[in-house]
Amino acid sequence: MARIAPLSGFPEWLPDGRVVEQHVLDTLRRTFELHGFAGIETRAVEPLEQLLRKGETSKEVYVLRRLQAEPEEAERGSEKQLGLHFDLTVPFARYVLENAGRLAFPFKRYQIQKVWRGERPQDGRFREFVQADVDVVGAGELPYHYEVELPLVMAQALGSLAEIGLPPVRVLVNNRKVAEGFYRGVGLDDVEGVLRQVDKLDKIGPDAVAQLLVDEQGATPEQAEACLELAAISGSDLAVIDRVRELATSYGAVTELLETGLAELAALVEAAAERAPGVVVADLKIARGLDYYTGSVYETVLVGHEQLGSICSGGRYDTLASDGKNTYPGVGLSIGVSRLVSRLLSAGLVRATRGVPTAVLVAVVTEEDRAASDAVATALRARGIPADVAPRAAKFGKQIQFADRRGIPFVWFPGVVGDDGVRGADQVKDIRSGDQVDADATTWAPPAEDLWPRVVPAGE
Amino acid sequence: MARIAPLSGFPEWLPDGRVVEQHVLDTLRRTFELHGFAGIETRAVEPLEQLLRKGETSKEVYVLRRLQAEPEEAERGSEKQLGLHFDLTVPFARYVLENAGRLAFPFKRYQIQKVWRGERPQDGRFREFVQADVDVVGAGELPYHYEVELPLVMAQALGSLAEIGLPPVRVLVNNRKVAEGFYRGVGLDDVEGVLRQVDKLDKIGPDAVAQLLVDEQGATPEQAEACLELAAISGSDLAVIDRVRELATSYGAVTELLETGLAELAALVEAAAERAPGVVVADLKIARGLDYYTGSVYETVLVGHEQLGSICSGGRYDTLASDGKNTYPGVGLSIGVSRLVSRLLSAGLVRATRGVPTAVLVAVVTEEDRAASDAVATALRARGIPADVAPRAAKFGKQIQFADRRGIPFVWFPGVVGDDGVRGADQVKDIRSGDQVDADATTWAPPAEDLWPRVVPAGE
Repeated sequence: MARIAPLSGFPEWLPDGRVVEQHVLDTLRRTFELHGFAGIETRAVEPLEQLLRKGETSKEVYVLRRLQAEPEEAERGSEKQLGLHFDLTVPFARYVLENAGRLAFPFKRYQIQKVWRGERPQDGRFREFVQADVDVVGAGELPYHYEVELPLVMAQALGSLAEIGLPPVRVLVNNRKVAEGFYRGVGLDDVEGVLRQVDKLDKIGPDAVAQLLVDEQGATPEQAEACLELAAISGSDLAVIDRVRELATSYGAVTELLETGLAELAALVEAAAERAPGVVVADLKIARGLDYYTGSVYETVLVGHEQLGSICSGGRYDTLASDGKNTYPGVGLSIGVSRLVSRLLSAGLVRATRGVPTAVLVAVVTEEDRAASDAVATALRARGIPADVAPRAAKFGKQIQFADRRGIPFVWFPGVVGDDGVRGADQVKDIRSGDQVDADATTWAPPAEDLWPRVVPAGE
Repeated sequence: MARIAPLSGFPEWLPDGRVVEQHVLDTLRRTFELHGFAGIETRAVEPLEQLLRKGETSKEVYVLRRLQAEPEEAERGSEKQLGLHFDLTVPFARYVLENAGRLAFPFKRYQIQKVWRGERPQDGRFREFVQADVDVVGAGELPYHYEVELPLVMAQALGSLAEIGLPPVRVLVNNRKVAEGFYRGVGLDDVEGVLRQVDKLDKIGPDAVAQLLVDEQGATPEQAEACLELAAISGSDLAVIDRVRELATSYGAVTELLETGLAELAALVEAAAERAPGVVVADLKIARGLDYYTGSVYETVLVGHEQLGSICSGGRYDTLASDGKNTYPGVGLSIGVSRLVSRLLSAGLVRATRGVPTAVLVAVVTEEDRAASDAVATALRARGIPADVAPRAAKFGKQIQFADRRGIPFVWFPGVVGDDGVRGADQVKDIRSGDQVDADATTWAPPAEDLWPRVVPAGE
């Protein structure tokens, strides 16, 4: 087993990094469950034909082959081939159709799983990473208020991570109907083409985008200018809605679709300002995703780490799934957990107080007395205190060192039987302070903050 | 998206089944952490050459290919190809080598992840399933007492599931040194060949095994008889050790290796009898695994469901991993979680009290008053009570029906503003009993047993 080297794009954490990741996952799960989302998992594979329904992602799919497949198995077409899922939306849509008769709609689910993308790994792109998704899907219809609720759930989930040092988040929202209504109003009908150019704003700047709109989309300079003016609008209160309407009016571009979109965006901005002040910002330059979402679209940035890109994105689909007879509209968001955890760790923002669950290491006096140490550990565990027993009856100094290396705060010394045949009192030592006191395994407990490993801002 | 059908061998659960699985996973994790095992995850893929080190499993491996791979990428040999891991032991061994300098040994870890096997799915065999592993690995050496501790950890983990209706478990143990010492003592040196035949006992019976030992292993009828007599021995106290020694003596087959193995087996049986009476049984016919483990070997059956096979197996490796310079011995066990959960569900042994986390559905009086319902839900969630808000301001009867269909026990009615301009009291209804009382979202709480979905024996 020579030449062991990490595989680029497949992140793994050491035990203390995993404590951080597990804390993030537990926090997300708790927030989702408090909001009534049911947890599901789907299989890692989907038929290749399902995965390829969106043409552009085809290059990212990992296809599976049984190493010793029969020849006819290897040759069969994509309808029988399996690939690893590259997101949790395609599998969820399939799960909804497969189980539609056994689910109650609107169905709120969260799903936290690994996904795989066979792209070339580069600057923080992973080939395997954990996503945490929430979606609500309706049968036939889905009330608009879920488009308000879902980004707020995510804002709260990410907000609960502030206590471990996650920077504040800002949810940027836009609405497909606003963009499409406006573009059509000014006379640009290739909406997806325009969105594709506007999406380049951050990379190439407004002048270059204006040029592309003229060269590639056949826009007049005035139409291009209108698109840039729309993209420049952002804000977190209702004034933003008025500014869009004024702009559209000045171009004679007020359409029914625009008004529908503005009413939706207004409802979102208004509810968000009340329920999570300052967190949600309407940002009319958000274009990514507007080509396949049909209503609200969301991106989320870490304040101060905007260059990391969106860590939580999503939007509204009028047709998340359809079986021909029934249509299932949905709205959802997805957190890139691995990217987030990787950032927390690599930027040194957080640390785990220890990499092992153990709060107490029970020392072993002699190997013949190991049963006494096992009994202490059993008594502590029965009371919910994570305990381990020293691997060897070494000198106590070495056993304390064993605990110290792992960040275990307490070492327990079982009492020894004296010359008088009476067993002395057990003692427990806080190896950070050196304090050592008599203790009884049926009553003693560590301070609550030492019971389990915690994740804290790196400075603490 | 037509023709949606389940994929054979890739189990998925409906939300209430997932509640059961999640409960099992949470229970295992808690037990492992109370015993000081650190949680890790490894990537889903390993280089194919690593996965193929044990030749016999090659047919089970799923190989990955990027759908749009460059031709040279597709043609390269197994040293660069990636496959999905088929267990958690191979990845753990690689993780230990890769991170040896950053881990503290003995290193105790648990790992709960999906694994994949490309075999033809049949009678309960899955192609994708969750395993839950615990292992201890040492650097250079690993004290024997871990061979006693690890099966007891698993027995306790599985024992904690008795409260939800899991039948009692029995851990069957054997020791490679006992089997090998005995076989060599009676003059049979092809130890793995003999083990392979003895492993067929349950399937083909003792007469056929004796015949195979004579025909295939070149044993004399007397040697074959000795093997069968050894395999017939089982018991949960030290008498079992004496019976093996007596048998070996009668055949003049007492070897040093046998005595070493018997001393180990005795230590395990003795400690287990004290710490978990009746759970561990020495069973000398256990052969599966003895060909690659080097000391203790474990299988675990559900009492009354023995035909399900072992749900938790493992053993001691003298060389879990080696980088040429250092050797890492280990001992561990692995629970087949999916098989267990599948059995619990399909045999109707357990049920979840509900399939959603929600304890309280907050009704909506009119859509204009939705904010008041949202505020109630927010107040409840802030106090750790999972709450959801009704999707529509339908008639209360329909909103109650919405809760009832999901098993949500409580429906909350926000007070309405009367003609006098005063808002009436909120009320909460237990929809099982029909009891309805005034309530305040900042103080009311459901009974503890209704707070979260629970998993209970199916009869309850």
